[in-house]
Amino acid sequence: MYGAGDVRVETVPDAHLIEATDALVRVTRAAICGSDLWPYNQMEPSETGRRMGHEFIGAVEAVGAEVRTMKEGDLVLAPFVWSDGTCVFCREGLHTSCLHGGRYGVDGVDGGQGEAVRVPQADGTLVVLPVERDDALMPSLLTLSDVMATGHHAALAATVAPGKTVAVVGDGAVGLCGVIAVRRLGAERIILLGRHPDRIAIAQEFGATDVVSERGDEAVERVRELSGGLGAHSALECVGLEQATVTALNIVRPGGAVGRVGVPQAESIPHGVSTFFDNVSIAGGPAPARAYVEELLPDVLDGRIEPGRVFDRAGRLDDVPDGYRAMNEREAIKVMIEF
Amino acid sequence: MYGAGDVRVETVPDAHLIEATDALVRVTRAAICGSDLWPYNQMEPSETGRRMGHEFIGAVEAVGAEVRTMKEGDLVLAPFVWSDGTCVFCREGLHTSCLHGGRYGVDGVDGGQGEAVRVPQADGTLVVLPVERDDALMPSLLTLSDVMATGHHAALAATVAPGKTVAVVGDGAVGLCGVIAVRRLGAERIILLGRHPDRIAIAQEFGATDVVSERGDEAVERVRELSGGLGAHSALECVGLEQATVTALNIVRPGGAVGRVGVPQAESIPHGVSTFFDNVSIAGGPAPARAYVEELLPDVLDGRIEPGRVFDRAGRLDDVPDGYRAMNEREAIKVMIEF
Repeated sequence: MYGAGDVRVETVPDAHLIEATDALVRVTRAAICGSDLWPYNQMEPSETGRRMGHEFIGAVEAVGAEVRTMKEGDLVLAPFVWSDGTCVFCREGLHTSCLHGGRYGVDGVDGGQGEAVRVPQADGTLVVLPVERDDALMPSLLTLSDVMATGHHAALAATVAPGKTVAVVGDGAVGLCGVIAVRRLGAERIILLGRHPDRIAIAQEFGATDVVSERGDEAVERVRELSGGLGAHSALECVGLEQATVTALNIVRPGGAVGRVGVPQAESIPHGVSTFFDNVSIAGGPAPARAYVEELLPDVLDGRIEPGRVFDRAGRLDDVPDGYRAMNEREAIKVMIEF
Repeated sequence: MYGAGDVRVETVPDAHLIEATDALVRVTRAAICGSDLWPYNQMEPSETGRRMGHEFIGAVEAVGAEVRTMKEGDLVLAPFVWSDGTCVFCREGLHTSCLHGGRYGVDGVDGGQGEAVRVPQADGTLVVLPVERDDALMPSLLTLSDVMATGHHAALAATVAPGKTVAVVGDGAVGLCGVIAVRRLGAERIILLGRHPDRIAIAQEFGATDVVSERGDEAVERVRELSGGLGAHSALECVGLEQATVTALNIVRPGGAVGRVGVPQAESIPHGVSTFFDNVSIAGGPAPARAYVEELLPDVLDGRIEPGRVFDRAGRLDDVPDGYRAMNEREAIKVMIEF
């Protein structure tokens, strides 16, 4: 990406092993993320550009001398950050704060929207998948790299539990995966806040029991009506814009919890006083996708959840620029790239 | 209180029963709260004034026809809000959000810094104490009305647990009770952020293992040094000023938790982006003191905790105005009023 709206497919030097803990992964599937749209709309023009992409699955082509848990030919899932798996934060399940980890596309690490990626800390990062590269489950498996893990993280941060009334703010791919996660954790009433008919339809198939298409105060009022006048126990903030954050904070009842996973676009959190007097908790952040694989992968393999349905468009590498455009214009929910 | 700095002791109409669920309580001990200092510094002049006080213990003088759990002569503890004990929020332990509850000193309910109080919803609110009115434990029992419950609430909101490193921001009465609560919940390292030698001494007796008297970035740096470079697992925000909130948010490590109980003086919560990327959670609010009595009362009765030591001054009703002054000028930590 060379600036807002300027995505180019270019030939770059071949990815290759550098560290003994690296794996070289030949990408078989990648995705465009909702968070990629922030730079797509806002990035200053750059001479050198920026490698993009952090959600991918691929085949191991080579491993460094110290890599133990995978071998050439293995199909692996890459969570959206790389991490050593052994530091204090990884041991606590917060791989996104790994002391020796980092992001794709920066600091000499390749982006995931490309043919091959040098993955640092391969043993700590990559998960060998027990399927073939063109398995029908591939779209759902790919969501474990980010979007399904992110929905799950939002639900945990919002303390979703059996029997609860939960509101999901946002009908993008994360919001839809949030609905799956909330249903999976046993919530009784699942209220989607969204206004795109195609996405609402998917959310309902995923388990949303109610839909609120109003915005602002009217949305708050509707959620209140749907929850006995009290507000939701939990709200998942899956957008990141201030208006969505305000809505999420306002639709939970006293003692409720907001799980935020939309990258916040405002520096401070609004409603600091009313949330205080209502004992509303605010948690969340980037999802430690690596930590959730063990829990979510069996459900994907058994077909109990189908988060891959959020991909409503697929293309090849050359289609990536148009994929950004389509997602940005809400023409596509989420785009998968096949290699 | 008739305005900032203007506290008067006046004769008002006798408190009396109104509702069948009321109890009339003859106050034996009351306290001045740190939160009373906000209006003491900021209140606009008022013709009619405002009844003050929400922490008290007293003897039941009369009960309404529907009151079942206490009788004339019982000594009772009043949590700092009144609550029915039966609504959805009370059943969840969030009595501060009771659907039929309210505050002392407003809407025709007396303030606690006076000779007698009509307590609404007596069965849901008051706790009969198994001691005599001049028991030596009285100061510690009185803290269960607010300040010790508030310290405990901060610790729970900050997810304090055995073995953790915990920072307590603020060396007022709530911060000191926060140290007790944190110690009681098994934290290994307890870092008090404060700068008053007398208060620091009490905090150390309560279990603080380290003291940081720097402020701002230097305080953050010191806490980081004391916690292996990572920051505290938990921080208790016991002040409410924006600077203290910023410090609390900055001294926790990734995945950490801030429990806030200082009444926030700023409308929004700062550092909404960095807390997001670090997965820092923010929780807390007014403590449901009524909910914590069952847990904390035995520890007070057995002498395992001595939160009453935060009272370093006692006076009579006529001393209340000077008590406000003394607390406001940091001459006293907390003032008890004896009747």
